[in-house]
Amino acid sequence: MQEARGKTVTVIKDILGANEQIALENRGLFNEKGVFVLNVMAAPGAGKTSLIQRTIEPLRDRLRIAVIEGDVASTIDADRIAGLGIPAVQINTGGACHLDASMVRSALSGLSLEDIDLLLVENVGNLICPTGFALGEHLKVMVSSTPEGDDKPYKYPGMFSAVDVLLLNKVDLLPLLDFDMDTFRRGVEALNPNVAFFPVSCKTGEGIEAWVEWLLARRDQGFQP
Amino acid sequence: MQEARGKTVTVIKDILGANEQIALENRGLFNEKGVFVLNVMAAPGAGKTSLIQRTIEPLRDRLRIAVIEGDVASTIDADRIAGLGIPAVQINTGGACHLDASMVRSALSGLSLEDIDLLLVENVGNLICPTGFALGEHLKVMVSSTPEGDDKPYKYPGMFSAVDVLLLNKVDLLPLLDFDMDTFRRGVEALNPNVAFFPVSCKTGEGIEAWVEWLLARRDQGFQP
Repeated sequence: MQEARGKTVTVIKDILGANEQIALENRGLFNEKGVFVLNVMAAPGAGKTSLIQRTIEPLRDRLRIAVIEGDVASTIDADRIAGLGIPAVQINTGGACHLDASMVRSALSGLSLEDIDLLLVENVGNLICPTGFALGEHLKVMVSSTPEGDDKPYKYPGMFSAVDVLLLNKVDLLPLLDFDMDTFRRGVEALNPNVAFFPVSCKTGEGIEAWVEWLLARRDQGFQP
Repeated sequence: MQEARGKTVTVIKDILGANEQIALENRGLFNEKGVFVLNVMAAPGAGKTSLIQRTIEPLRDRLRIAVIEGDVASTIDADRIAGLGIPAVQINTGGACHLDASMVRSALSGLSLEDIDLLLVENVGNLICPTGFALGEHLKVMVSSTPEGDDKPYKYPGMFSAVDVLLLNKVDLLPLLDFDMDTFRRGVEALNPNVAFFPVSCKTGEGIEAWVEWLLARRDQGFQP
């Protein structure tokens, strides 16, 4: 077992190194083509696809948008997005618990980058595995949701530390939940004091305008975060 | 990259094989000592710890109970259980997205198996990684929760296929959610037609009695599932 573990560490370093290289190549391509790219991460059911839908609505007349959907199985999310008339490519990872830069590179063959200003990549629902795998994105976006509880920053510090922006979704359910906003925010601030934070409800639309304005401003700042 | 991937597959087979061996040893020890063991799995925030608390309440006068808590970081869950006066050991996995049989074996040194009838092991919050790693448990228990959505069986078929019992938690929130019970159940039945299914609310206590009765009956059937 010890020997197997030693081997694993080496291999994981190889894989992470190779991933980092492909992510850099993806990023170079995105910059060259003027495509601003978001890597949207969350636990299962936090509302990643709903956030993507809510982000598309106010922006679709101003920017040309496309979506890459990552899931272990099914095409449910890509079908939802395609139903809006937005180009969508589904990646099924089989058993893998995260997207990687190579999967995203393969998915790009299904999209015309010249015709895209904003590419939203929805990662696999998971608060642990996606953290270590850059895809070539300009911004790492995390969706947390109130029913998951106020203790999530303490239990999953890796992802809360790694992201540029955090959306707390399903705030419409707050009156029904034992969710202490101060506990949640203290946990986030200890890990990531500079993260942009938006409480939102993808159901009611609350908070979406502030998030979209921030996103446009970050895009206008250019493609080197 | 190809070479690195080939190596990974081999190493993962080694690790899974080694894990399976240790899981069998754990199971032998549990059987010898008369300890019935549950591996409780779920997405982050579905309510694993709350279910464990609700399971302890009606059983603590009839069975001697202990808990192993698995998390990437923090001792929040073990502290909650210890606060009830129940022996609890916390495993922090560092970055790992699941418990394994070796971690459970190490945690057993903090418990006196002779004094335990029922051991509840709470896995790391994750719908993907824990599926492949047996811990030596007698029952695989999954907690899904209504705010995660009715599409989860379709997106995470591995875990829904692998478990002996499925609890759908937070049914008290159903009137506020767009959750179609038929869609959810059809997805579950296609993957795992024999799974025991209990809709529950760990907040209100709804459905807990039926789950606890089922659990006692399964335990009485003996220690070879």
